Amino acid sequence: MGVLRLSHVDITVPDLDLAAAYYTQVLGLELVEREASADGDRLFFKCWDERDHHSLAVRYHPRVGLDRFAFKVEHEADLDELEARIEAAGIVVHRIADGEEIGQGESIRFELPSGHEMELVHNVHKVGGRLPLLNPKPIAEGLIGIAPPRMDHLLVQAEEVGEVSTFFREVLDFRLTEQIVSGAGHQIGAFLERSHRPHDIAFVQGPNGTLHHFSFWLDDWDHVRRAADILAFNGIAVDIGPTRHGITRGETIYFFDPMGTRNEVFTGGYRPDPDFPTITWTEDQIGRAIFYYEGDVNQRFVGVHT
Amino acid sequence: MGVLRLSHVDITVPDLDLAAAYYTQVLGLELVEREASADGDRLFFKCWDERDHHSLAVRYHPRVGLDRFAFKVEHEADLDELEARIEAAGIVVHRIADGEEIGQGESIRFELPSGHEMELVHNVHKVGGRLPLLNPKPIAEGLIGIAPPRMDHLLVQAEEVGEVSTFFREVLDFRLTEQIVSGAGHQIGAFLERSHRPHDIAFVQGPNGTLHHFSFWLDDWDHVRRAADILAFNGIAVDIGPTRHGITRGETIYFFDPMGTRNEVFTGGYRPDPDFPTITWTEDQIGRAIFYYEGDVNQRFVGVHT
Amino acid sequence: MGVLRLSHVDITVPDLDLAAAYYTQVLGLELVEREASADGDRLFFKCWDERDHHSLAVRYHPRVGLDRFAFKVEHEADLDELEARIEAAGIVVHRIADGEEIGQGESIRFELPSGHEMELVHNVHKVGGRLPLLNPKPIAEGLIGIAPPRMDHLLVQAEEVGEVSTFFREVLDFRLTEQIVSGAGHQIGAFLERSHRPHDIAFVQGPNGTLHHFSFWLDDWDHVRRAADILAFNGIAVDIGPTRHGITRGETIYFFDPMGTRNEVFTGGYRPDPDFPTITWTEDQIGRAIFYYEGDVNQRFVGVHT
Amino acid sequence: MGVLRLSHVDITVPDLDLAAAYYTQVLGLELVEREASADGDRLFFKCWDERDHHSLAVRYHPRVGLDRFAFKVEHEADLDELEARIEAAGIVVHRIADGEEIGQGESIRFELPSGHEMELVHNVHKVGGRLPLLNPKPIAEGLIGIAPPRMDHLLVQAEEVGEVSTFFREVLDFRLTEQIVSGAGHQIGAFLERSHRPHDIAFVQGPNGTLHHFSFWLDDWDHVRRAADILAFNGIAVDIGPTRHGITRGETIYFFDPMGTRNEVFTGGYRPDPDFPTITWTEDQIGRAIFYYEGDVNQRFVGVHT
Repeated sequence: MGVLRLSHVDITVPDLDLAAAYYTQVLGLELVEREASADGDRLFFKCWDERDHHSLAVRYHPRVGLDRFAFKVEHEADLDELEARIEAAGIVVHRIADGEEIGQGESIRFELPSGHEMELVHNVHKVGGRLPLLNPKPIAEGLIGIAPPRMDHLLVQAEEVGEVSTFFREVLDFRLTEQIVSGAGHQIGAFLERSHRPHDIAFVQGPNGTLHHFSFWLDDWDHVRRAADILAFNGIAVDIGPTRHGITRGETIYFFDPMGTRNEVFTGGYRPDPDFPTITWTEDQIGRAIFYYEGDVNQRFVGVHT
Repeated sequence: MGVLRLSHVDITVPDLDLAAAYYTQVLGLELVEREASADGDRLFFKCWDERDHHSLAVRYHPRVGLDRFAFKVEHEADLDELEARIEAAGIVVHRIADGEEIGQGESIRFELPSGHEMELVHNVHKVGGRLPLLNPKPIAEGLIGIAPPRMDHLLVQAEEVGEVSTFFREVLDFRLTEQIVSGAGHQIGAFLERSHRPHDIAFVQGPNGTLHHFSFWLDDWDHVRRAADILAFNGIAVDIGPTRHGITRGETIYFFDPMGTRNEVFTGGYRPDPDFPTITWTEDQIGRAIFYYEGDVNQRFVGVHT
Repeated sequence: MGVLRLSHVDITVPDLDLAAAYYTQVLGLELVEREASADGDRLFFKCWDERDHHSLAVRYHPRVGLDRFAFKVEHEADLDELEARIEAAGIVVHRIADGEEIGQGESIRFELPSGHEMELVHNVHKVGGRLPLLNPKPIAEGLIGIAPPRMDHLLVQAEEVGEVSTFFREVLDFRLTEQIVSGAGHQIGAFLERSHRPHDIAFVQGPNGTLHHFSFWLDDWDHVRRAADILAFNGIAVDIGPTRHGITRGETIYFFDPMGTRNEVFTGGYRPDPDFPTITWTEDQIGRAIFYYEGDVNQRFVGVHT
Repeated sequence: MGVLRLSHVDITVPDLDLAAAYYTQVLGLELVEREASADGDRLFFKCWDERDHHSLAVRYHPRVGLDRFAFKVEHEADLDELEARIEAAGIVVHRIADGEEIGQGESIRFELPSGHEMELVHNVHKVGGRLPLLNPKPIAEGLIGIAPPRMDHLLVQAEEVGEVSTFFREVLDFRLTEQIVSGAGHQIGAFLERSHRPHDIAFVQGPNGTLHHFSFWLDDWDHVRRAADILAFNGIAVDIGPTRHGITRGETIYFFDPMGTRNEVFTGGYRPDPDFPTITWTEDQIGRAIFYYEGDVNQRFVGVHT
């Protein structure tokens, strides 16, 4: 009961054609739907192994940015219960009516203490994955580009990480898998999960309301190399990687879409059940925590967000 | 709330020294504790990334067999609630007192419709993993043998698969990820999960009360090769593999411990959330379903169990 | 100076359309040329990273079989020198005139003591690989099927392995990397190289003039899995694998093209320079020598050849 | 006939104990022999799959540097022939008597146009590898650290790359697999091989007589990750990687031993036979040529040498 996983990330870009080309040809997502809108036309993308309508929505806007992100809940009743809890925490909740948003039914939307707009959805339109539910082959052939099977998580920034991570734990029942603690004892990084993965969302200290990256799952280290090959083949700017995180133990590449939003491909890591104890990193070890091979974090990684 | 994952498998073997040598040196588990007992001495093993007391208990007995398997629940209250549900299903539940079983507190035990003894545990003694909870390195060095990070699942046999899988779904709240259906429409294979993995337990048609195999998680396909190297290096009999399953999409090797219990190493597969739809296999496709590369199932795989 | 490597294998098949479909769509070779001929039409294939005209020629004939195999020499003068040596060994050598065989210039052809027709070629038409010679990207995109970068070796059978392997060593200057020796001290397997790979050709005891398999190089173990996925996806009969050889240490899958010729994909192994000492296997260890994981050789592997 | 491969690299370090610890425990070489000498004590190391006495010699000297590098020739007569050729090129050749240098018999030594001291050796003492020559298992167990099977190549610097690469081609019969050419048409990088690998030695423009790095072979990309894990685990400074080269197509990590000599681990790449055509890179593409994923070369990589 409660939140299942990251459902979709809604970003803005100044060039929809370029976004369509990049996200279908290089990243290898499926373009599910286009919406014409006075508010900026939108493109809806999904990964090949996802069955829900979309995991990435890209809206035209002159400036690159983040509109919101949505998590999916298991039961319709979860929307009511979480709405009550969020309101009890003093936060205004808006109902999104069925038919108001493409690909999803009635939903709730609210602003986090970190200034991000967050959404909870339940009735998501099913468009199905690339594999059938009867006698499927274990691989999908004919994929293009990196072709991750699914969206994995996102990392956003908050001025007060401790405040928003407490909200996620106490109100939304997320579990804290890892945290970074400053010398003064403040939480400056929080990694939170609901789906038995190392993180479904993470917060690091930074300007409120900003996006650091969203991340796509790959199946293993060899696919990370293939992703690096494809990125370089297409002239995509790699931020860092292939490398390994200390936090999550996962393997990663960070790179930028041509409009400037940071993407990640990610694999590995552990599978935390709810009895997983929180791992703590001290700020002096933040280099190894973020990039285990390099042992430090470059300024671009710290400074660039959207 | 409810069942988290497979906690431990309890088997019997006719040679404890050989079991200790194999499970520590070849499989690379940690021998946590030895128990002298009139009922047969016991050895308790855990994997390097597990924090609970043990995931495998091996008891001396002249005959190779399965004593029971245990699943862990999230909350202490889950024991009471599940006990009530199981009794409501007409099954007698026994309480195991704190101190009665090594490594665990008060637990409940009962016999499944398939004739297996099953246990639910909550208060498991924590012995900790190989990595600390403060600034851990992402890899554990100095491991021996295959050294899987954790136990993953087990597959047992039942004369009436549909009956026991219904029990797991309705009483224990497991989710059915995949099933094999006979030409006559009977469920002859059921793959069930609670931990957002392709399966925590599976049932296939066969003699009641028997064990087909238990399985250890590996992190990727390269570790599967390394496992195959280590098995061959040590002269261990491989049943089949390295190969891939159609069911779960995972990669696998099956092999036998020197006393005759089938082990598996397993990796890959998808990460099913509770909204994952059930995949159905028809009996005529059972070859590809079990071993995708070979396309058929050898008689040893079907006929040998313990 | 002397022999460089395996140049091409010429086989016969009863269905050229099926051969074309399989070798281009499943194996992922490039169809370079078709030849209409009274002697049976022929198809010429090459791998994506090969620059010479072809590495596989497939001729129509009602019966599956081996026409011949060809090795490439470094210098034109090597043809003369080797011709003299072969004739000095009492073997008749035929000159193939320039223009007589598609894709190659003047060549020599002769029958081995093992009854196989062998060819030495030098002036091979260059058709070029998929990557340019100026600022190439390190990967070729848009490949189809398994898409091995190159042909690697072949294994043929001989009644007297020692006789033909001596010919290869003494007359053709091959080096013996590994051998299998019977209990009676006879050489029953010989692995020979010129190109600093574990083998360019191998002989095992069996009917003279027959082909056991030819083999394509893959870059690593992950590509072996991908090859297995593609083979199963296309319903191709796998003989054995993925597994590892004791001989060569390489990783492998054996499978049959739809007409019945055994193919292999192969990777790994060592890089023997000419000072590499010969490794010897005793017949009682032949199981591990051939298939290290299984420890024995199935009857199909021993009995089926073309 | 002629040069087989890189035999050994002789460097100086200011701390032999640290060198011994690093090269045995982190890199995982075998310490074959120690030599006490007035000229500076020396340590001799080899890789586990090498059979010759050593591939790395480390001499005590207050300053980190390169003494020389040695290539192995196939036949004893090659020493005489190459000596004559080198002298014909106007270079003085010194004979090293049998017994004068540890681990090798009579050898020749001379100074390259690039100011490096080079040696050619033939009679190298055999100490054997970790695997026997009779019925070997394909893997060596019990290895420590990264444990590369063998030394692969070295890269040194020269003010006039064209001059020394011409010497290697014309006098020593090396083949040029790849080159980097400046806008003005000068060769500023040359990659040369004798062993059918992408390079046994490379020259790039830089101060005469200096060493950029020597490189150890790894079997695949998974071993590259494991090397990165081990390096980070031991706090070794990574220069760059894991990444891929455009030149050679190989995968790589560069890092520094604790005294300051750059090491590389390397895998992948093609297998060039002597008919392999030279690949040319223009200087404007040097970023992708060196580091395909990053697309540019950091200043440390260009500026730091020993």
